Amino acid sequence: MRVALLQTAGTGTVAGNLDLLEATAASAAAAGARLLIAPEMFLTGYNIGERAWALAEPADGPAAGRATEIARRHGLALLYGFPEFRDGAVYNAVVWVDPEGRRRVYRKAHLFGPDERRLYLPGPEHPPLVRFEGLKIGLLICYDLEFPEAVRALAVAGAELIAVPTALMEPYGFVADALVPTRAYENGVYLAYVNRAGAEGELTYVGRSCLVGPDGRDLARAPGNAEALLIAEIDAAEIVRVRSINPYLHDLRRDLYD
Amino acid sequence: MRVALLQTAGTGTVAGNLDLLEATAASAAAAGARLLIAPEMFLTGYNIGERAWALAEPADGPAAGRATEIARRHGLALLYGFPEFRDGAVYNAVVWVDPEGRRRVYRKAHLFGPDERRLYLPGPEHPPLVRFEGLKIGLLICYDLEFPEAVRALAVAGAELIAVPTALMEPYGFVADALVPTRAYENGVYLAYVNRAGAEGELTYVGRSCLVGPDGRDLARAPGNAEALLIAEIDAAEIVRVRSINPYLHDLRRDLYD
Repeated sequence: MRVALLQTAGTGTVAGNLDLLEATAASAAAAGARLLIAPEMFLTGYNIGERAWALAEPADGPAAGRATEIARRHGLALLYGFPEFRDGAVYNAVVWVDPEGRRRVYRKAHLFGPDERRLYLPGPEHPPLVRFEGLKIGLLICYDLEFPEAVRALAVAGAELIAVPTALMEPYGFVADALVPTRAYENGVYLAYVNRAGAEGELTYVGRSCLVGPDGRDLARAPGNAEALLIAEIDAAEIVRVRSINPYLHDLRRDLYD
Repeated sequence: MRVALLQTAGTGTVAGNLDLLEATAASAAAAGARLLIAPEMFLTGYNIGERAWALAEPADGPAAGRATEIARRHGLALLYGFPEFRDGAVYNAVVWVDPEGRRRVYRKAHLFGPDERRLYLPGPEHPPLVRFEGLKIGLLICYDLEFPEAVRALAVAGAELIAVPTALMEPYGFVADALVPTRAYENGVYLAYVNRAGAEGELTYVGRSCLVGPDGRDLARAPGNAEALLIAEIDAAEIVRVRSINPYLHDLRRDLYD
């Protein structure tokens, strides 16, 4: 399956970002992609303070309706970040939308820093596995990925691709360069890490979005923090091949560490 | 505390390796080191097939006796790999020896590949924490480190330095370059990864031994697989500083992942 990763600063408005999503979906579909992933808080911007409350929508709100039309029209699945309004609170969430109109929401479990903890409730649930095009895809958001436990749990549950909208800023480039490939390697999974570009207020993003293979090697990577659309191929057979060489899930001493 | 990492191919004999240990302990002590770490199976060589059985010794055997003399004479602790004979079986083990004559053995829990599984029993126990010079030091061997669970358990138990004798061969350089720094970073611990040099039979080691700080940065690293003695400094206050920036142990959602 071909996957598209949109590294972007966004346009500054929800309507503009939905237009960008539509235009990018058209390009990605034309390149043969069946899945388009956009960054954390793609819909509204990430570093927007209390405006996240004003712009928050339910997972079946108008923006999700528009995204569902886009997915249907271009025949690909979408995953992007947004502030979700739910039961009187706001979550830092991502929504998965497939071309048949199925939706799945995941709410960031590991909130990063005092700003996120002031604005959002932490997600109460384990991240989901969605099935699409014969693949099992686990969803995480940014800081979640930095905890090896989160990726391990998804890999043990059968995930073949971990899809991670993120907003990784300076000085945390180590995460994009070393930790992300390690997560893929130590679990024998594909990992799509899709970062914001540019700067927002005092935050400068590191960019360096990437699709990493189950052997830890980059299949595609944005060099810096400019706008980029990466397209790369995922092959479940490669997971089987790599795990025959690096059988981590098999060799883990569950009697000692479970 | 100053730490010395001996990357070496060894001399080919147990007596020669003990002489090398003594000479290196003298240099390391002269440079102010209080701990000298040598590679996996340092005492005998790693890729020695059934000879590991012939050369195996109990943890209180003659080689350990000689190591204890060396530690006492030079006033530093030693950690090195050897094949341990115990209760009619052989383990891929490391022994910790301190200048007061205290010893601690750890037996590799995650055996790597069919050769190790044919020769050795897997270690039955969690890795130990030893206390030395006011530091808590966790012991692992090679492949153990590649499982994030092993390092996390030691870090949660209070480890400040993870000491890892290893025998990392081509084509697994990814482990030395990306995974090792990630283990240090995701736990906020120092990590000493001490590899073999040169080649043994069909195995060519990658070298690249390193001491990595709790922020994931190299404090010392051997460039290739030649003989090297690295010396670098460990400071427990740096762990506190880094964990105030990267509070992974605090932020982990134990309600979801425990």
